[in-house]
Amino acid sequence: MIGIMIELTVKAGSGQEFERAFAIQAAAVRANEPGNSLYALFRSRVAPDGYTLVEIYEDEDALAAHRNSPHMAANRPLTLPFLAGRSETRAFDVVSHVA
Amino acid sequence: MIGIMIELTVKAGSGQEFERAFAIQAAAVRANEPGNSLYALFRSRVAPDGYTLVEIYEDEDALAAHRNSPHMAANRPLTLPFLAGRSETRAFDVVSHVA
Repeated sequence: MIGIMIELTVKAGSGQEFERAFAIQAAAVRANEPGNSLYALFRSRVAPDGYTLVEIYEDEDALAAHRNSPHMAANRPLTLPFLAGRSETRAFDVVSHVA
Repeated sequence: MIGIMIELTVKAGSGQEFERAFAIQAAAVRANEPGNSLYALFRSRVAPDGYTLVEIYEDEDALAAHRNSPHMAANRPLTLPFLAGRSETRAFDVVSHVA
């Protein structure tokens, strides 16, 4: 299984709007991607506009299906505008995952 | 919901043994903690002995129940010896979690 973590920052004060837009994106991911088993947005308790998106995919094909999906193409334009600066993506191998 | 992320490093070469011991700990968490909905160990693809443990709890009570549980008391002595140096724990609020 593949774990993805994306550290991101949203524009000052836009957290609530971002979270609303993100919730729609997350629902679409979970409704359309059998190969995804986690798509969770963590709000930092330290950095005011900081978030970490945590994702788990069955394999590389599931991750590719996610990245190339129509629903992500439709949702990215609704969430990306909230981002401030570059996000940092890290990939992992999920050793032990019990959801 | 509460998200916890623990960045940790194990002693050089002890990854496989650590992962075996951790799998027992994870199974105990999921079998005994209705308030936990994620307990996933991510192995770094960059730092050879680096891991991130990602956890989600229903609320502070569920997190306290985890930390004070008999199964964690029993399992910590089996996993902690593998750790090299200090781990770094970050707490988050989970905004959107669809597992």
